[in-house]
Amino acid sequence: MIAQTPPMGWNSWDCYGAAVTEKDVKANADYMAKHLKQYGWEYIVVDIEWYQPTAASHAYEPFSDLCMDEYGRLLPAVNRFPSATDNAGFKPLADYVHSLGLKFGIHIMRGMPRMAAHKNLPIKNSTYTARQVANPNSICEWNPDMYGLKCDDQTEGSLDYYKSLFDLYATWGVDFVKVDDIAREYPHCRREIELISQAVRECSRDIVLSLSPGPAPLHEAEHLKKYANMWRITDDFWDDWNLLLSMFDRAEEWCTHSGPGHWPDADMLPVGALRVVYEENTWTKFTKAEQITMMTLWCMMRSPLMIGADLPRNDAFTLSLLTNAKVLAIAKDTFCAHQLYRTQNEIAWIAPDKKDSSVYIALFNITDKSQTLTFDLSAYDLAEYTGAKELWSDTSISVADSLSFEVDAHGACVFKLTAPKA
Amino acid sequence: MIAQTPPMGWNSWDCYGAAVTEKDVKANADYMAKHLKQYGWEYIVVDIEWYQPTAASHAYEPFSDLCMDEYGRLLPAVNRFPSATDNAGFKPLADYVHSLGLKFGIHIMRGMPRMAAHKNLPIKNSTYTARQVANPNSICEWNPDMYGLKCDDQTEGSLDYYKSLFDLYATWGVDFVKVDDIAREYPHCRREIELISQAVRECSRDIVLSLSPGPAPLHEAEHLKKYANMWRITDDFWDDWNLLLSMFDRAEEWCTHSGPGHWPDADMLPVGALRVVYEENTWTKFTKAEQITMMTLWCMMRSPLMIGADLPRNDAFTLSLLTNAKVLAIAKDTFCAHQLYRTQNEIAWIAPDKKDSSVYIALFNITDKSQTLTFDLSAYDLAEYTGAKELWSDTSISVADSLSFEVDAHGACVFKLTAPKA
Amino acid sequence: MIAQTPPMGWNSWDCYGAAVTEKDVKANADYMAKHLKQYGWEYIVVDIEWYQPTAASHAYEPFSDLCMDEYGRLLPAVNRFPSATDNAGFKPLADYVHSLGLKFGIHIMRGMPRMAAHKNLPIKNSTYTARQVANPNSICEWNPDMYGLKCDDQTEGSLDYYKSLFDLYATWGVDFVKVDDIAREYPHCRREIELISQAVRECSRDIVLSLSPGPAPLHEAEHLKKYANMWRITDDFWDDWNLLLSMFDRAEEWCTHSGPGHWPDADMLPVGALRVVYEENTWTKFTKAEQITMMTLWCMMRSPLMIGADLPRNDAFTLSLLTNAKVLAIAKDTFCAHQLYRTQNEIAWIAPDKKDSSVYIALFNITDKSQTLTFDLSAYDLAEYTGAKELWSDTSISVADSLSFEVDAHGACVFKLTAPKA
Amino acid sequence: MIAQTPPMGWNSWDCYGAAVTEKDVKANADYMAKHLKQYGWEYIVVDIEWYQPTAASHAYEPFSDLCMDEYGRLLPAVNRFPSATDNAGFKPLADYVHSLGLKFGIHIMRGMPRMAAHKNLPIKNSTYTARQVANPNSICEWNPDMYGLKCDDQTEGSLDYYKSLFDLYATWGVDFVKVDDIAREYPHCRREIELISQAVRECSRDIVLSLSPGPAPLHEAEHLKKYANMWRITDDFWDDWNLLLSMFDRAEEWCTHSGPGHWPDADMLPVGALRVVYEENTWTKFTKAEQITMMTLWCMMRSPLMIGADLPRNDAFTLSLLTNAKVLAIAKDTFCAHQLYRTQNEIAWIAPDKKDSSVYIALFNITDKSQTLTFDLSAYDLAEYTGAKELWSDTSISVADSLSFEVDAHGACVFKLTAPKA
Repeated sequence: MIAQTPPMGWNSWDCYGAAVTEKDVKANADYMAKHLKQYGWEYIVVDIEWYQPTAASHAYEPFSDLCMDEYGRLLPAVNRFPSATDNAGFKPLADYVHSLGLKFGIHIMRGMPRMAAHKNLPIKNSTYTARQVANPNSICEWNPDMYGLKCDDQTEGSLDYYKSLFDLYATWGVDFVKVDDIAREYPHCRREIELISQAVRECSRDIVLSLSPGPAPLHEAEHLKKYANMWRITDDFWDDWNLLLSMFDRAEEWCTHSGPGHWPDADMLPVGALRVVYEENTWTKFTKAEQITMMTLWCMMRSPLMIGADLPRNDAFTLSLLTNAKVLAIAKDTFCAHQLYRTQNEIAWIAPDKKDSSVYIALFNITDKSQTLTFDLSAYDLAEYTGAKELWSDTSISVADSLSFEVDAHGACVFKLTAPKA
Repeated sequence: MIAQTPPMGWNSWDCYGAAVTEKDVKANADYMAKHLKQYGWEYIVVDIEWYQPTAASHAYEPFSDLCMDEYGRLLPAVNRFPSATDNAGFKPLADYVHSLGLKFGIHIMRGMPRMAAHKNLPIKNSTYTARQVANPNSICEWNPDMYGLKCDDQTEGSLDYYKSLFDLYATWGVDFVKVDDIAREYPHCRREIELISQAVRECSRDIVLSLSPGPAPLHEAEHLKKYANMWRITDDFWDDWNLLLSMFDRAEEWCTHSGPGHWPDADMLPVGALRVVYEENTWTKFTKAEQITMMTLWCMMRSPLMIGADLPRNDAFTLSLLTNAKVLAIAKDTFCAHQLYRTQNEIAWIAPDKKDSSVYIALFNITDKSQTLTFDLSAYDLAEYTGAKELWSDTSISVADSLSFEVDAHGACVFKLTAPKA
Repeated sequence: MIAQTPPMGWNSWDCYGAAVTEKDVKANADYMAKHLKQYGWEYIVVDIEWYQPTAASHAYEPFSDLCMDEYGRLLPAVNRFPSATDNAGFKPLADYVHSLGLKFGIHIMRGMPRMAAHKNLPIKNSTYTARQVANPNSICEWNPDMYGLKCDDQTEGSLDYYKSLFDLYATWGVDFVKVDDIAREYPHCRREIELISQAVRECSRDIVLSLSPGPAPLHEAEHLKKYANMWRITDDFWDDWNLLLSMFDRAEEWCTHSGPGHWPDADMLPVGALRVVYEENTWTKFTKAEQITMMTLWCMMRSPLMIGADLPRNDAFTLSLLTNAKVLAIAKDTFCAHQLYRTQNEIAWIAPDKKDSSVYIALFNITDKSQTLTFDLSAYDLAEYTGAKELWSDTSISVADSLSFEVDAHGACVFKLTAPKA
Repeated sequence: MIAQTPPMGWNSWDCYGAAVTEKDVKANADYMAKHLKQYGWEYIVVDIEWYQPTAASHAYEPFSDLCMDEYGRLLPAVNRFPSATDNAGFKPLADYVHSLGLKFGIHIMRGMPRMAAHKNLPIKNSTYTARQVANPNSICEWNPDMYGLKCDDQTEGSLDYYKSLFDLYATWGVDFVKVDDIAREYPHCRREIELISQAVRECSRDIVLSLSPGPAPLHEAEHLKKYANMWRITDDFWDDWNLLLSMFDRAEEWCTHSGPGHWPDADMLPVGALRVVYEENTWTKFTKAEQITMMTLWCMMRSPLMIGADLPRNDAFTLSLLTNAKVLAIAKDTFCAHQLYRTQNEIAWIAPDKKDSSVYIALFNITDKSQTLTFDLSAYDLAEYTGAKELWSDTSISVADSLSFEVDAHGACVFKLTAPKA
């Protein structure tokens, strides 16, 4: 049983773009094993274009020569991942990550390399060839590497190709695959999602299936829950207040669809050191208050948590943000969370603990000024609670008819209510 | 403190239209006192045009002579409500209802009678006259009786008029007022709602304020919660499957806004004997299964419950529907309810009990055939529950990884899950 | 045969609002007879609320006492129109206008006075009474005087009322009636337009039927052409460049529907002295160039021409604008006019003369700066024309492959092309 | 000066799809020279995929090997066009067409062959290579052959490529180029249209530039008029009444933009023998009446006229349809045409003759039954016309106040009005 609680891990995109190397991955894995593993963090995910030898930033070079095997399956570029030499693929790197007690993930684009189709390569264990399964009109809007596969009528050859991929990844020891150019591509990628899901489930290893990019369509929630373990509900999320503010709407829409094995995904956490290989190599632009808002919302809505930072460069605040066990527990222990209200100034969420009668209340200050937020317990059937603790400040709060807390601009507080009368 | 749980009662509209009489009201009150009161039913509400002497059906006669006092306040038509003679108003009828241990409510249209404005009557306890506060361009689309009041800049005179109304109603002993032509009239009635709310709160009696007709706009939820106790989320609801089916969307949108003192209202329950004074004097067209679906959804979303039937003509099924204490408890005892999923065939809702660790799961069969509905406990964090009872059939259900139940076309089942493991 | 070319006249609204008096009307009629009649101007139209004794501006006073006869037909307020004394109505004033060689028009609101319905007055020559034909839910959004009439199923009584009106107007000598609150009120006023049209055609006098306010819906063009002589294509037009600029879109849409007896109406010409009874008593805010643009467009699209100015206060420019016979001839003599092109900077229109081979080309400068506009004759099948005269400056222009003319900001030029080769 | 009147010709698509051969082209050219040339028909156009050796129908084969030269320029497949041997290209076939007194045209897709980009071929007379100018994300939705060119910032290399194409076509003797996958691709193909237009105008030969497919956006009319000689206003048009009926809307919108050198294009005329290489090899499904409607509308709106039939198989009706000189004259001699009115039953168009005072009136019966259509001359400023001839029946019509003509279901009549009084 995989992904029984929201997956937690690290992904290379926010700091390394398309240019991450084996050395970078190991450094982040080492850090995670030492500082984060005990809080539940476990996945180390290598993002896009690990098969592109000349990738140097977050940009994609068209018509470049991608590393692939004789069956049109992409391979790690050895100049970037030296352990992949001698056709070893990602097995040595996955072994290393596993040796730290962590799990290993990779990113792929849906479809096959364009050149595999133009060269008409054979598909492993199949009577089909690449030209027969590639769809010349199915390309990604933002990446030049692939053709999508034919999924309309005859899907046998396309399934053969996807099975050949996941069979290979299983031998490498991959635990998590993020498939890109697919989650918001309904309806035309509906069948392609099903084929990929089938290939994942029929391979010899438990692999978490993550779909990107968002926004996935809300009306496809049941399809997504059936065929994937997590899926993006937004376009790429970055360290910008307006993006964070707009996440509340999507969180509200999607929160009821979270559950064991199926998690709406609000995307990576852009904290700490970011954009190492980008033009602008910078620290997160989020204020501390905004980072607290983000972590609180992601946990209340039970989103997967994927860190974007270059972990070894974390400062004390960033580490503390990622290791508040009481807040992280919200993502693991609650159910039936949802938004209670939203005004011009504030947003409130509620999440009952599924194991006991405690309840979490999060209050978000969405104004540009510090303000005291007040929550009326009696208006939401919580009049009988007498104990409350604010989890970021770790302070006990006196409870009368209402809770009050001073919250920074763009910040949040989150209470655990306990000890109901009778 | 009023309306701490969803109000429960009877309203005259569905059976008596605009033509209800004192005798009808008393007969229904007597029935409620005898058969329903012990289950929480308490309000007896006289709906529209009790001031129109010639009202005979659900239609409205234009330019008719309405009963009113010298201050432009409407009075019960004595030919229909004999106890209102000698300017007694509804006081004698309210006294009678109170004597049964029940509460008394009336319906009003926003604004003042058109003739009060054309005649320029004085407003009681005010320096304003009717012509100064009536808005000649604010009329109801479906009823010819009234002009709305001016609410744009100068609202003192309009407030005076509304205070003169509620002062009168308080002397009558009114416990509940349903104000019509207002809940869906945002934004132009925004201020008028505030004035009415102020008049209600400043009068000398606790009066539940109910706003009609719907659909009230979802984005005004916080305004409605602040100024009213309940508000309609739909246009008039009748005994039609398509109307019932479409209620699920609104229930999903509004359910998070329910709470003590503020209840989104899915409208009356058209069960039993309906349309007594209509062209078609009929029994409800809902199947028993559909009535079960309706009661289940209204309770899960915590809607007010207002019976539309002519109560003395209830049959055994109708009475049983209204007196299932375990189902009615859902409306009183839960919080954080919401829809879990919806497919072409079924809908599932969840509602945690706020007092203990039990959880309600409702499954709705929205197809036209009987089918077995199955709920996967583990997919929604409920794997640890071992006990379940279906509340309509009052049967204990064996719980493995999932719950299964045979449900009639358009029907529902609702489980109470108890006894979680540790 | 009426309205064979676009009607030309004067209307009291732009300068006198609801407060025009007999003296004002006569002064404008005198001016027209002396200075404008020879150019084709002929209608003198008394606009809204001539039946309201206390009207003093462009505002409407609600619940006021309107002058009406015992059949609920409005009469001129004698304090404002002294010649209407002794139930003479507008006959004496119409006689005066006719004595000047001009024609007389009035404005009415659709429907009947609200008080006529509440008092249930009889309808002349009818078995119906006012209460039976008034529609209590059909009111004007912007004027408090009237109820519209029932037009859904039984329309006999409503037709009786409208016939009683036009019979009266025919005895007064009315030549033109502008019916308000109707032209943009499709679809619910569709039948009411037909009833009014029938009453007009069955009365004993030729009366031009004009419908206001706009925008009338384009898809009802054939209905409007059948039942009215002119109808507004815009909301009220005033002396504002943005309103003038936006008229080009409507002119383009409507121009093909112009023809003898049926004219899309771009509304009054707000030139000269305006707003005499308004808060701001001002001269037109249009520049001279903008007024030239307006007159050119109105003539090219063949709109009715109704002057808004207080005519006796015209200056020389205003008079010259209204008496350019060569430009006014465009409205009378052309057919098949339409827009040729529109860019960010300019608009071009073409209108062939229906009597000979001459062609009018109008160029509009829609930028905020003076610029030279050039028209490529060969690109629009006009290469064979060798003669051109610009009609506002009355100058002959040399013609090569193209025409060029310096045009002020927001201004226009219009050429008459003659003498084609061959 | 090219395209001074709407271009008239034949195009291979409707009968030969992607599979036309040299033999087919010559047969149609021979027929045109013999039977149609004297009526103004002159262009012989070879449509899509003349460079694909295995094309056999209207379908496109993905990843096929296209004939191209060392600069990535497509060449005729010699197996289908034998005269193109020895790198002769289309020169021998163009010479043949020219020898008949006709003009020669070809179809191209925008962009370059995908394999030219993947192989990174050089561009003739340029410092750029294919990989630098191809846009990997710009593909055609319905054809797998090409990549569009980069047009965003640096367009020098893209222009070089297009110039290399048109220089080659000029040497072949091409008179007409239909560029596909472009006319409805605004805004992203806006710049690419400009580059192609520049390349056409800078080559050494007059070439008519035609853009496909439609619908081109109406708000880009001025851009299209500036950069192209004709452009499609609809998606592919076929022999289906609903498509023909819907053309009236587009004709109405676009007709004012017709003029020498710039023609909105309603697409090919699907008459006679069609779909020779399609699954269904059939005669046109249009009734004769529908074909008359089509020819009448195309001529009234001055669309280019491109025959879709396999000409040698024309029957007498088809030939008569294409050789009615009086109807074809409408397309050549009129200006200022537009729709006059449209009801549920009929549509009327007007087009003045630009050389004299005659006027064309077309009436279309859009019902499914034969009916007599009547046109009121006086309502459209044509009361003074006394002579009329219906051009399809070649009969003189008596003219009173109106014209009347019996018209078949879906049919049309068109009158030439002459001899105005005075």
